Amino acid sequence: MEKGSILYEGKAKRIYTTVEEEVVWVEYKNSATAFNGEKKTDIEGKGALNNKITSLLFSKLQEQGIESHFMEKISDHEQLVKRVAIIPLEVVVRNVAAGSLSKRIGLEEGTPLKQTIVEFYYKNDELGDPLLTDEHIDLLQLATQDERQELKQKALQVNDFLKTLFDDIGVRLIDFKLEFGKDAEGHILLADEISPDTCRLWDKETNQKLDKDVFRRDLGSLTDVYQIILERLGGSKLCTK
Amino acid sequence: MEKGSILYEGKAKRIYTTVEEEVVWVEYKNSATAFNGEKKTDIEGKGALNNKITSLLFSKLQEQGIESHFMEKISDHEQLVKRVAIIPLEVVVRNVAAGSLSKRIGLEEGTPLKQTIVEFYYKNDELGDPLLTDEHIDLLQLATQDERQELKQKALQVNDFLKTLFDDIGVRLIDFKLEFGKDAEGHILLADEISPDTCRLWDKETNQKLDKDVFRRDLGSLTDVYQIILERLGGSKLCTK
Ligand SMILES: Nc1ncnc2c1ncn2[C@@H]1O[C@H](COP(=O)(O)OP(=O)(O)O)[C@@H](O)[C@H]1O
Ligand SMILES: Nc1ncnc2c1ncn2[C@@H]1O[C@H](COP(=O)(O)OP(=O)(O)O)[C@@H](O)[C@H]1O
Ligand SMILES: [Mg+2]
Ligand SMILES: [Mg+2]
Repeated sequence: MEKGSILYEGKAKRIYTTVEEEVVWVEYKNSATAFNGEKKTDIEGKGALNNKITSLLFSKLQEQGIESHFMEKISDHEQLVKRVAIIPLEVVVRNVAAGSLSKRIGLEEGTPLKQTIVEFYYKNDELGDPLLTDEHIDLLQLATQDERQELKQKALQVNDFLKTLFDDIGVRLIDFKLEFGKDAEGHILLADEISPDTCRLWDKETNQKLDKDVFRRDLGSLTDVYQIILERLGGSKLCTK
Repeated sequence: MEKGSILYEGKAKRIYTTVEEEVVWVEYKNSATAFNGEKKTDIEGKGALNNKITSLLFSKLQEQGIESHFMEKISDHEQLVKRVAIIPLEVVVRNVAAGSLSKRIGLEEGTPLKQTIVEFYYKNDELGDPLLTDEHIDLLQLATQDERQELKQKALQVNDFLKTLFDDIGVRLIDFKLEFGKDAEGHILLADEISPDTCRLWDKETNQKLDKDVFRRDLGSLTDVYQIILERLGGSKLCTK
């Protein structure tokens, strides 16, 4: 397979066409961004780490019957995925209070939530990815009620699986963000990435942050902690073809 | 009836006990505040205007069978109301995009909404009155699902009535905020105030803003426009005992 023309370039990845209409080529970039692009730098090795971790997690999810766009890791920093029309909603699942939820409702970071929370944010950089209620989503026609239900149910399924997976390697899954899209047949498919860029992951023993908050809050080397996640997941032994 | 000890002083009103456990005395203040108290000034006559407008609107709502805490206007700037335990949710009804909704979803101010929107905000000055989803409300145990349904249904009922009332006097009801509370028996009752402080009201012909945005955005004399609302409602002819 060869890389065709560029379809979009986002903050973390470039998407290219391939000879197959329904397959796109994803290139993970080394750029790290936060606060809606206000803070930005290049970090050697970040793209490869996220590509490896995402590939590994999507593979494991697929083994559990949780479908996604993921097809194949084709190099250190590249993968092939099924092309979808991204639903412009960031689906956030939270097990423990942190980040914007802590600020919003005044719950100290680290407080376990009595119930798992699923939130929808409008994937819209211009508007700063605002929180949306069901009524906003209806008004903007971003997803029907049935689709919201499906997104929520799939997000919780991913949470159930990942929570245990991370727990087994000594990591607390605090929260994470998913994106979904529709394939050519209109089926909703888990897409984008699942990596320390899109999850909050804290070491169970030390509470060390092993995710992008290290970059957001200047807590040390991003690649060092992403490498810890990859290693604990058993991914450093993976073929890196 | 006499005024007892002060129960609370808010940004716009003071609440006093009375000899009757279940009745409180509300004094409308002249202070105008915006942006969570950052902008603040005293405006002679504002308290009386809001007291008169609120009394008039609650009376009209009561004639339609829409119950509220309102009992009696007792002076220019005072009224007696039933004491309730306020539910810390600001229930916002929107017919037309404006203010924070315009910013949140990128809809130009003045765009009619295809469907009326009801939003819940956390009544919490320290947190800046943040928007909440149903799941946040569940987590914080601010209202049950049934209560949310009841609040929403009552808010829409108020909207149906007020929209027509204002339309008849040449005013567009853009949006407004309600507060509800529970009385001694646990019944949910419409409470607080309905005034140009808590509604967006635009002249139908000229689009002139006849509400607190005049203060927020420095568009002229607040009391001049509140007076227009009171007069059009027929309230300047009211007894001002
Ligand atoms: N399977 C897919 N098909 C098409 N687009 C996708 C797919 N998976 C992810 N995308 C989109 O690719 C774009 C690039 O990713 P990224 O760099 O993370 O962008 P962003 O800056 O929007 O976060 C995003 O818009 C993302 O939603
Ligand atoms: N019937 C009522 N019984 C008890 N409290 C009430 C009643 N109606 C309104 N309140 C509360 O009175 C307080 C004072 O009002 P206000 O000055 O508008 O306060 P705020 O600064 O919180 O907006 C508010 O907390 C309001 O919710
Ligand atoms: Mg992204
Ligand atoms: Mg108030």
